[in-house]
Amino acid sequence: MSYRGASKQFLDSQDISIGDKIRITKKDVSYEGMVLERAEDADEKHIVLKLASGYNVGLDILDAEAKLLEKGEKPKIELQPLEIEKDGKKRDISIISTGGTVASIIDYKTGAVHPAFTADDLLRATPELLEHANINGEAILNILSENMKPDYWIKAARSIADEINNGAYGVVVAHGTDTMHYTSAALSFILDTPVPVVLTGAQRSSDRPSSDAFLNLMGSVTAAKSDIAEVMVCMHATEDDSYCYLHRGTKVRKMHTSRRDTFRSINTQPIAKVRNGNITILDENQEYKKRENGEVKLQDNLEPKVAFIKSYPGISGEIIDYHIDKGYKGIVIEGTGLGHCPDYLIPAVNRATDSGIPVVMGSQCLYGRVNMNVYSTGRELVSAGVISALDMLPETAYVKLVWTLGQTDNMEEVRKIMQTNLKGEIGAKSSQKFF
Amino acid sequence: MSYRGASKQFLDSQDISIGDKIRITKKDVSYEGMVLERAEDADEKHIVLKLASGYNVGLDILDAEAKLLEKGEKPKIELQPLEIEKDGKKRDISIISTGGTVASIIDYKTGAVHPAFTADDLLRATPELLEHANINGEAILNILSENMKPDYWIKAARSIADEINNGAYGVVVAHGTDTMHYTSAALSFILDTPVPVVLTGAQRSSDRPSSDAFLNLMGSVTAAKSDIAEVMVCMHATEDDSYCYLHRGTKVRKMHTSRRDTFRSINTQPIAKVRNGNITILDENQEYKKRENGEVKLQDNLEPKVAFIKSYPGISGEIIDYHIDKGYKGIVIEGTGLGHCPDYLIPAVNRATDSGIPVVMGSQCLYGRVNMNVYSTGRELVSAGVISALDMLPETAYVKLVWTLGQTDNMEEVRKIMQTNLKGEIGAKSSQKFF
Repeated sequence: MSYRGASKQFLDSQDISIGDKIRITKKDVSYEGMVLERAEDADEKHIVLKLASGYNVGLDILDAEAKLLEKGEKPKIELQPLEIEKDGKKRDISIISTGGTVASIIDYKTGAVHPAFTADDLLRATPELLEHANINGEAILNILSENMKPDYWIKAARSIADEINNGAYGVVVAHGTDTMHYTSAALSFILDTPVPVVLTGAQRSSDRPSSDAFLNLMGSVTAAKSDIAEVMVCMHATEDDSYCYLHRGTKVRKMHTSRRDTFRSINTQPIAKVRNGNITILDENQEYKKRENGEVKLQDNLEPKVAFIKSYPGISGEIIDYHIDKGYKGIVIEGTGLGHCPDYLIPAVNRATDSGIPVVMGSQCLYGRVNMNVYSTGRELVSAGVISALDMLPETAYVKLVWTLGQTDNMEEVRKIMQTNLKGEIGAKSSQKFF
Repeated sequence: MSYRGASKQFLDSQDISIGDKIRITKKDVSYEGMVLERAEDADEKHIVLKLASGYNVGLDILDAEAKLLEKGEKPKIELQPLEIEKDGKKRDISIISTGGTVASIIDYKTGAVHPAFTADDLLRATPELLEHANINGEAILNILSENMKPDYWIKAARSIADEINNGAYGVVVAHGTDTMHYTSAALSFILDTPVPVVLTGAQRSSDRPSSDAFLNLMGSVTAAKSDIAEVMVCMHATEDDSYCYLHRGTKVRKMHTSRRDTFRSINTQPIAKVRNGNITILDENQEYKKRENGEVKLQDNLEPKVAFIKSYPGISGEIIDYHIDKGYKGIVIEGTGLGHCPDYLIPAVNRATDSGIPVVMGSQCLYGRVNMNVYSTGRELVSAGVISALDMLPETAYVKLVWTLGQTDNMEEVRKIMQTNLKGEIGAKSSQKFF
């Protein structure tokens, strides 16, 4: 999280470091301020200064000149604790950070440089949140979400459970977007929550004018105060900053590398939209779990030794054998079409099921429902004991198998759990909704 | 491709076999005819009879009674060859069948039971095609497309090349839908074609009232006569039977398990639509390769030992090591977000690239563009030598690496080819088009 490329050379050439006070001159305009860190996803062309006014400004280094005014320390800012009185009329919402682009809002806006954030950091950066709730913030991880793993799902689930059991009216989880949908599915199965649990993130960090962090965070706090007691993902519904969708945690997927409205509900519609502090349920016929009193229930045994294999023309059956021999406890195949893989894989699949290793079939189509009863390859897979993921997303099927094998290793129980709708992950009938 | 379940029991109980002449009585109505085979995707509740009129009828076995009238042979129908004179005013279009649901139209409508189809079978089933072209048909494979593999891509490419070099004005390829987009990408790279090559298929076979086979086949013949000399996929554009889209073979993907409009162009729009024998280019600014004279060029060396690995939370780095040790020549990772995988995979990725095994990074988001310069994990992957798939579909990136490694094993040449747009697989800039 520092300068690189051209902007690094620019600073190095004047022996300028982060924390130094400098003057940057571009034509007739000069800016004086302290050199700040850049966000993780920043470009190489800008220097960011914190001006005396408190505002931060990003300056293009093209045709710019820099002058060192005063050497400074890398700002290990020791800000005074905020003394915010709890407002008895407002709800208590907890925000748990795991890292990712949305968390970088904090470092940038405060100028603080530390890996974790506190409630104070969060509120200095986004004081608007206080208008809507009493905020309690905690950083439990600071990772990019491609590094998420089942152990961290457990850690997050336990922290969320603690917050709820300590009285939080709802919980927001700040998370990187890459694997947010895997985590939202995992938390859906692990937690039986009486209050909303809302994952949110950002596609662009807050030192970019196009950052989506603010709307997503505000929408998430609104969602956390709602009566929808499910694990959800709250992210931009459109490319502009008008409103967010609340997606069911088991039915959502990141579908675009860079767009702000990258998250989409698949095989269903989002539960609700959030605009200006208001929640609108999208379909009154779609059921959702209502807020209730009581403690959260936690089933956090997971079996991380589950393989997730994409089928493709040319795949070798040896890849199944490899996972069997390596002691994997379950296999999810992301098949083609209605849930197929090459028929020459079937002997290896048989070997897996004969060894007590459940094999689940999802579809790389993503939309629609697995149906292995239509074509002969599917019927052979059924005969080999393969379990249909039905209309579960393949990612959700993978997460669910990791969770299910944490609850039982009985093959028939695994089959039954996988094919029973627990957290909205399986639709009652085939959805024809498409885009 | 025969009866099963309840309908099998129904026939077996009367000792009735395919080819027998029987009478089925339901309440006051009786039907006499010959028992036909069912299509691959047929249900278990119907018996299909060929009536004396020549029509086929599907009869629900519920409350039905059957009586055997005359034992018959399984109809190894030896139909007289059609004597169709070539129409000098019409274009010569070749239809090559590889199998799949679309090919089942033939067996069903003719009552013939044989694995291959001939031009005559095709024309008996779909005589309307003759109004639009002189049709030359050939069956080169009869497989469900989940069983497609690189060797078959070569076989199909060579057959197509033969047809073109023997004077075909355009070629239609009947193909199962599961992996049609892998094959269309493969044919795009293997063939440099002066005429259209159009893959088509069906989501539902022709003994179902909702079959999409007819419109897709008719649209494909229209496309094969057009001036678009590219490898394309021609499939339903909507859920009804109104028109088809022509998708570029490298930019298309099966996106729904069962809908007729399952194929979607990703990160671009379809090249054209086909309605009632007319082609409409969708965007006059989108370039396409125009029909030309001359022979087809064939570059059909492939390297089938390429791994295609989906990244997920909990994946083990050992899966990379496994493929290195097994002698794989290339690896495509379907990463998360902008093109990431867990950072703990990076040592294994380094080992691959150090061993001269190119590693290509695509995104499981599908939409958008890989950009490994934004976050630290991506930059570390770039340092490890990972090649960006840019805005290629991960499936296309896999197919392209199979093809590229057939042309060269020089790492820098592989990188250059993978990142050069050859057949419309890479867009000039990031597409924000989404659904």
